[in-house]
Amino acid sequence: MKISEIIMKKRDGGVLTKEEIQFFIDGIVSGSIADYQASALLMAIYIRGMNEEETSNLTMSMRDSGDVIDLSPIKGIKVDKHSTGGVGDKTTFIIAPIVAACKVPVAKMSGRGLGFTGGTVDKMESIPGFRTSLEKEEFINQVNEIGISVIGQTGHIAPADKILYALRDVTATVDNFSLISGSIMSKKLAAGSDKIVLDVKCGDGAFMEDEERAKALGTMMCKIGEAAGKHTVAVITDMNQPLGYNVGNSLEIIEAIDVLKGKGPKDITELAISLSAIMLKLGEMVDSVEEGRMMATEAITSGKALAKVKEFIAAQGGNPDVVDDYSLFPEPQASIEVTAKNDGYISQIHCKCIGLASQSTGAGREKKEDALDLSAGIKLAKKLGDSVKKGDLLATIYGDKSKIEVAAKQVEDAFEISDEKVEIPKLIKEIIGL
Amino acid sequence: MKISEIIMKKRDGGVLTKEEIQFFIDGIVSGSIADYQASALLMAIYIRGMNEEETSNLTMSMRDSGDVIDLSPIKGIKVDKHSTGGVGDKTTFIIAPIVAACKVPVAKMSGRGLGFTGGTVDKMESIPGFRTSLEKEEFINQVNEIGISVIGQTGHIAPADKILYALRDVTATVDNFSLISGSIMSKKLAAGSDKIVLDVKCGDGAFMEDEERAKALGTMMCKIGEAAGKHTVAVITDMNQPLGYNVGNSLEIIEAIDVLKGKGPKDITELAISLSAIMLKLGEMVDSVEEGRMMATEAITSGKALAKVKEFIAAQGGNPDVVDDYSLFPEPQASIEVTAKNDGYISQIHCKCIGLASQSTGAGREKKEDALDLSAGIKLAKKLGDSVKKGDLLATIYGDKSKIEVAAKQVEDAFEISDEKVEIPKLIKEIIGL
Repeated sequence: MKISEIIMKKRDGGVLTKEEIQFFIDGIVSGSIADYQASALLMAIYIRGMNEEETSNLTMSMRDSGDVIDLSPIKGIKVDKHSTGGVGDKTTFIIAPIVAACKVPVAKMSGRGLGFTGGTVDKMESIPGFRTSLEKEEFINQVNEIGISVIGQTGHIAPADKILYALRDVTATVDNFSLISGSIMSKKLAAGSDKIVLDVKCGDGAFMEDEERAKALGTMMCKIGEAAGKHTVAVITDMNQPLGYNVGNSLEIIEAIDVLKGKGPKDITELAISLSAIMLKLGEMVDSVEEGRMMATEAITSGKALAKVKEFIAAQGGNPDVVDDYSLFPEPQASIEVTAKNDGYISQIHCKCIGLASQSTGAGREKKEDALDLSAGIKLAKKLGDSVKKGDLLATIYGDKSKIEVAAKQVEDAFEISDEKVEIPKLIKEIIGL
Repeated sequence: MKISEIIMKKRDGGVLTKEEIQFFIDGIVSGSIADYQASALLMAIYIRGMNEEETSNLTMSMRDSGDVIDLSPIKGIKVDKHSTGGVGDKTTFIIAPIVAACKVPVAKMSGRGLGFTGGTVDKMESIPGFRTSLEKEEFINQVNEIGISVIGQTGHIAPADKILYALRDVTATVDNFSLISGSIMSKKLAAGSDKIVLDVKCGDGAFMEDEERAKALGTMMCKIGEAAGKHTVAVITDMNQPLGYNVGNSLEIIEAIDVLKGKGPKDITELAISLSAIMLKLGEMVDSVEEGRMMATEAITSGKALAKVKEFIAAQGGNPDVVDDYSLFPEPQASIEVTAKNDGYISQIHCKCIGLASQSTGAGREKKEDALDLSAGIKLAKKLGDSVKKGDLLATIYGDKSKIEVAAKQVEDAFEISDEKVEIPKLIKEIIGL
């Protein structure tokens, strides 16, 4: 087999065989296929597309390019949750304790943040002492003992995806269903869970701005999951404004704990309960999502989820007292306020701008190697549809003195105020594959 | 400007501006654009295409990526000739002396062979002492003194083309009109002539197998030439069998000298006179191609062209006695004959196979750094349409003992013999842009 012939075939709109796709993935991992050949094929795939079978085959080859985690030593049905990336999305840290408190094991590997979106691993590291890197045995034992562990990606998961993603990022080939699906699902399938819940964001702060496209992506990923023998559900959710009020690492953990205490913002609470309910259904703990919602809500009101998060933090070396005393989190150096310039209703909070502003505070990374200020970030005071008077507080920016002014300007630009009342987008738009 | 945005634009079928194309070419030459980004854009260009204006702009940017030769110190109208590459194509070494003998200056830079096609520079180097590398001043002085000089490509001509060609070769993006035109015309325009004659080959031994595609390519290149202010004529010629009988370096020079002596094969003589006639017309030495044909023919019959080739060889350090004594050329180590397996008419001489067989003898290169056996090659004994009896000589293979057997097998496979009479393809199919 020759890579130039495979490129030629896709260039001319042909359908690649399983063997050709395998040859490509093997070649990029071994280095026998040069990156300039890979990027030419990626562009051909981008323009010509891949059918479902090709996409599945691509995903399986990528999954098998590295370690495939064996979670079978963990008792019970393991359900993984993945978000396509949002701003202020701290759901993992909420639903993991809820689901674990409801006796469905959570053995989850999460990512770090990059660009305008944050990552669960960074957020958890804002808890003093918290370890996000555990040995595999430690990880598995912890789940068997207390029902929950969340760590950073270990070992050698889908190295083909790392190579392809780095190339796609600089060759305008990111935004393609097959390539996105392959990237997400290869890692999820390699992570070893039995079932998968995908939170596919859509809106101005999401990778997929358009709802129909988000649904199509969700559908594709569900099909790949099924093809790999893992029941996969995709939940299409709104990302036209940040989730909750807090954006930034410790700020988001604090807000997540608030949700577990039953006093969190409505939107993030609602999303967390919905996703938890689907996970409980997939974990066969309940017979319906409605029943799952009741069970998840009860886990909060009873305090079981809060107890579980403390247990979880302590098990991973963190100080569980942070749950009751937020002053134990690192403190930001300075803060600055952004206020409304006129009266009206909040008609836009450009999510991506808030994400980039958060990055400016030091809470996010521009490049992989950037260090983070875990105490930095943004606390919104208003959300979409809220009415404001000129001079009202819109947001408080936290971080290093040298950085917060730039971020404040970005936050100011992210807000739009309208004279007319504003309709708030529906948070959960569709559930696919349940 | 950002390369990712330029890639994205072409990916989505957009039209690139002059500035965007310039940015791309500047970037690949300076190294600020990575090869994997260049190859992604090449694939997008391949699939989405470029319009005439984009193609012209690409060509001009590539031309200006290196030295643009100034031939103004040479008196008269300089007409360049370029062939898209064939097998047994020794026309340059025939028409250069003819045209020079007719007082149109020839200041030409030629290439080396690669793959199944040969190159004029290699062929000329089979003449003992012949120097293909002259200083610019020497080159110009020689043309002013004797009307002719042919050398290897000097200096830094269109470095962007070198980079892009190397990438296209391994990413299945060679066969695209805009990229081919840009590659050929950028070098021709940088070579400094006033007018250009393109010999666009079509047929099984050519880059463009299809006649209509060859015409379209010729038309595109003529338009680019005009856009650059240089009258360009494209001659579409047949390459369904090798030109003449000889393939290989010294073998081709010998056959070219035969043509200048008036005793060369019909096809290559006809092609040389036709191309010379067009060059004489462009050089404003005659008013019509017909008049040019007469003048070119007279240059042969009178012996003026033969005298000019001796002068030319001597001026570049070669031994002009080779013209009268072919034994002065290097002698091949061994030879082997290929004979007909049955009676009939020669219905195919697969040009590409003959080219590859020539490469096997040591007359051609597989890789740029390969050394050549300048005495090796193939002498055909039959051409398309000839009748043969079983056992008749089809070709003689010359070269190193260790190599000629493989080549003989390839030559044997190149021939097809049919029971029915065979129609010989027309040699000159169309002249565009005259």
